[in-house]
Amino acid sequence: MTITVNLNADLGEGYGAYAMGDDESMLGIVSSANIACGFHAGDPVVMTRTVKNALSKGVSLGAHPAYPDLQGFGRRPMRLSPTELEAMVAYQIGGLMGIAATCGGKVTHVKPHGALSNMAAVDESLSMAIGRAIKGVDPSLIFLAIAGSEMAKAGRALGLATAEEVFADRAYDDTGNLVPRSQPGAMIHDPELAATNVLRMLEDGVIVSITGKRIPCTAHSVCVHGDEPSAVAMATTLRRTLEAKGVRITTLPEMRERF
Amino acid sequence: MTITVNLNADLGEGYGAYAMGDDESMLGIVSSANIACGFHAGDPVVMTRTVKNALSKGVSLGAHPAYPDLQGFGRRPMRLSPTELEAMVAYQIGGLMGIAATCGGKVTHVKPHGALSNMAAVDESLSMAIGRAIKGVDPSLIFLAIAGSEMAKAGRALGLATAEEVFADRAYDDTGNLVPRSQPGAMIHDPELAATNVLRMLEDGVIVSITGKRIPCTAHSVCVHGDEPSAVAMATTLRRTLEAKGVRITTLPEMRERF
Amino acid sequence: MTITVNLNADLGEGYGAYAMGDDESMLGIVSSANIACGFHAGDPVVMTRTVKNALSKGVSLGAHPAYPDLQGFGRRPMRLSPTELEAMVAYQIGGLMGIAATCGGKVTHVKPHGALSNMAAVDESLSMAIGRAIKGVDPSLIFLAIAGSEMAKAGRALGLATAEEVFADRAYDDTGNLVPRSQPGAMIHDPELAATNVLRMLEDGVIVSITGKRIPCTAHSVCVHGDEPSAVAMATTLRRTLEAKGVRITTLPEMRERF
Amino acid sequence: MTITVNLNADLGEGYGAYAMGDDESMLGIVSSANIACGFHAGDPVVMTRTVKNALSKGVSLGAHPAYPDLQGFGRRPMRLSPTELEAMVAYQIGGLMGIAATCGGKVTHVKPHGALSNMAAVDESLSMAIGRAIKGVDPSLIFLAIAGSEMAKAGRALGLATAEEVFADRAYDDTGNLVPRSQPGAMIHDPELAATNVLRMLEDGVIVSITGKRIPCTAHSVCVHGDEPSAVAMATTLRRTLEAKGVRITTLPEMRERF
Repeated sequence: MTITVNLNADLGEGYGAYAMGDDESMLGIVSSANIACGFHAGDPVVMTRTVKNALSKGVSLGAHPAYPDLQGFGRRPMRLSPTELEAMVAYQIGGLMGIAATCGGKVTHVKPHGALSNMAAVDESLSMAIGRAIKGVDPSLIFLAIAGSEMAKAGRALGLATAEEVFADRAYDDTGNLVPRSQPGAMIHDPELAATNVLRMLEDGVIVSITGKRIPCTAHSVCVHGDEPSAVAMATTLRRTLEAKGVRITTLPEMRERF
Repeated sequence: MTITVNLNADLGEGYGAYAMGDDESMLGIVSSANIACGFHAGDPVVMTRTVKNALSKGVSLGAHPAYPDLQGFGRRPMRLSPTELEAMVAYQIGGLMGIAATCGGKVTHVKPHGALSNMAAVDESLSMAIGRAIKGVDPSLIFLAIAGSEMAKAGRALGLATAEEVFADRAYDDTGNLVPRSQPGAMIHDPELAATNVLRMLEDGVIVSITGKRIPCTAHSVCVHGDEPSAVAMATTLRRTLEAKGVRITTLPEMRERF
Repeated sequence: MTITVNLNADLGEGYGAYAMGDDESMLGIVSSANIACGFHAGDPVVMTRTVKNALSKGVSLGAHPAYPDLQGFGRRPMRLSPTELEAMVAYQIGGLMGIAATCGGKVTHVKPHGALSNMAAVDESLSMAIGRAIKGVDPSLIFLAIAGSEMAKAGRALGLATAEEVFADRAYDDTGNLVPRSQPGAMIHDPELAATNVLRMLEDGVIVSITGKRIPCTAHSVCVHGDEPSAVAMATTLRRTLEAKGVRITTLPEMRERF
Repeated sequence: MTITVNLNADLGEGYGAYAMGDDESMLGIVSSANIACGFHAGDPVVMTRTVKNALSKGVSLGAHPAYPDLQGFGRRPMRLSPTELEAMVAYQIGGLMGIAATCGGKVTHVKPHGALSNMAAVDESLSMAIGRAIKGVDPSLIFLAIAGSEMAKAGRALGLATAEEVFADRAYDDTGNLVPRSQPGAMIHDPELAATNVLRMLEDGVIVSITGKRIPCTAHSVCVHGDEPSAVAMATTLRRTLEAKGVRITTLPEMRERF
């Protein structure tokens, strides 16, 4: 049986005159794009360009909603009520849908960004607010959520197609959470090791934590980064290694029956 | 034959802790609402509340896109390229669609706001950019445009259902444009006079300018304002007078076959 | 010996076309104004108008810096690093100083707003960051801080003139903190009771908590609110009652030797 | 007699996570920095870093106020009233002064940015509004204005020290204005030619236009750019060439007696 997996990356994170990341390279690697929706990055012009580029490469489109914090790139924790959050997420998904429609494309998934994702991952009420926004805008949207997080639980509880995401370039602790970037060993810089880790998640359904503990996981999608040349190289190697092992890389909508 | 007309107003123009206008009263008067989309006013929470209120009153939903200028309430002229404008309008329409979907509603028309509307009214390239955005997002959307403007021409040129809008409380000059607010006689404060003017537009298909010139017009919708108690009183009287004369007030989608 | 006290209020909290509060009335009641600096409210035009009005009434000028959150009116908790916070506070103070200079006035105090004030009140590192910003911009600025808070401690630790502020319309708990608005009894609506409480703080140097506990306090300034007609009435009565009892109301710079 | 000239560049134009330009290199070339003040670019953290870097290199500090348009990088024309503009410019200058004070530095000049500069250059009322803001905030500030522009006239009319600026990498038309970038020959890419042009402006007091016409000019400062590697190379060559010819490069405050 062929193993399939999705590769996703955060794209379209420029703003006006500002550039961010190497979208061109990443669009040659990933099969799904999480596109900034104007709150932490991205403006309507950047969003349009990103959607067009993704469509031209056959990469599926996802909304990447965030806290309203351009200055902090959506990485600063904010405390919003679930009601505020639900409305903001719906607005951002809709905004990208509007742009995508003008380009002849369709938004098929939603992945929260930065501090919003980190906070929701461990907060049921935030996760449910995000899930309700997704379901309210379009119940056929796929919720791309950190594996094992409250977001993944909320997605399933709401009956949404829920894809679980793992990280190739990050170490996990014994609870299945990411080791914070501030701690030693948090980042994995060896592409071969990253590929081995991902293959084990896909084939055996386990994450091996930084202490060696085996944690069951369901991995539908692997998040890769393109913010530095080394990250692009890592992602390239990961894709090649997976393909060499016979893994098939697909878009999220193509995997829908598995969620 | 019964004369029908739409009454529209700009609603949902609060922002965060800030209130603006008397939406509650206006929703009892108009049949279609132009809802601020976050660029000149409105935030996702305000938008959600406005959509829910409009739906509960049977008022049809329209997007009210604007220049990105919260500080200037979208009233300050800006010079954007058609490409920028098209993307911004698509984003704003989509944002409201996302919100509307979570409330079980549907956006059925688009009316540009403030300086954007004023500038596009006399600029074909801006009008075409707005029209392309509307068509690109959803070709069944109605373009609510100032009667006789470049926007109305662009809407029809693009094959969009195009509703022409007149003003009950403003005087017109001999070219069919509004007399600028800075000039004497620009504002009509007498509700009876306003109603008479509107009836003449509906029954005879003419605007009588401030100098007495008769200008042919097609009036599908009348814009009323709710920013001051006197404006609400004016709008109330207008509706009552029209209804007393047998005019039927309908939503824009109900009039679709006329556009 | 005459008892003196300062009365302060948050003013200039409009934004663009949006109004907030009854500044006109409050400027007849208070002796010092905390003026929004553009991050949670206020824009350069509103700031200019507020400065001019305050100067015309002999009300001293203070900066009212906040988190960058216009949509949330600076009331939503955000997590910024002390470095970010220090720079933001310095920028906002400077911005108001620029405006004040064009009006022939001078900023003489700084009082943090909303969530920033609430979070800093119990966080030494945030309080020190605010204090460093104040000292760095102008070491003669008075730090107007919640009585007994980490901000008051930081102000004194940095050698800043530090004025301690109490609230006339809020109940205190046994630790000397405000009873959250969400709890019963948090708000004091009886102007006589408010005046009695304030007099006891000034004469006896104690706050009586909601349970009756007596907590020592130093009260240099009383914060009053003007966001509702009832709040304006409360503030008016408070001022009259204090004056009737022989308390002298002064600006913060006039009290400088006491800090 | 030694010829002296100032070299200025726009710096600190990053924002949050976004980088812009090669400030490090440019600070080794110029003697005065125009620092973005948060409206078109720059945030308080970026401003603080830029001020510190400039001070460490002995580069004098200038405010670089702009229209409130981060998305358009301050390059999109906007129509503000002189009253709005005056307040905005005062706020931005003040904001940078606040930051500069915390770093132990002092703002000594002001140079408008982008569309604001372009529009004011040919508009007396905008130029006077900018000039009044500068004078109101601190009458000792130097107004760095495009040579021969309405800004230069307004600065002198208001009694401000006014430095006139020329461009090394741009061609001039017969009226003394810059040839628009959209036209052929607008940009000068040859560093030797640029240096020759600048020397002629300094030694002979004339600009030679693109058609060969000699236009009298007073050149106190030369604007150089650092947005591309070729621009940095151009600026480096220009400085070396000028120094080789015996021209002394100074900060704006060192030239004050000449304005």
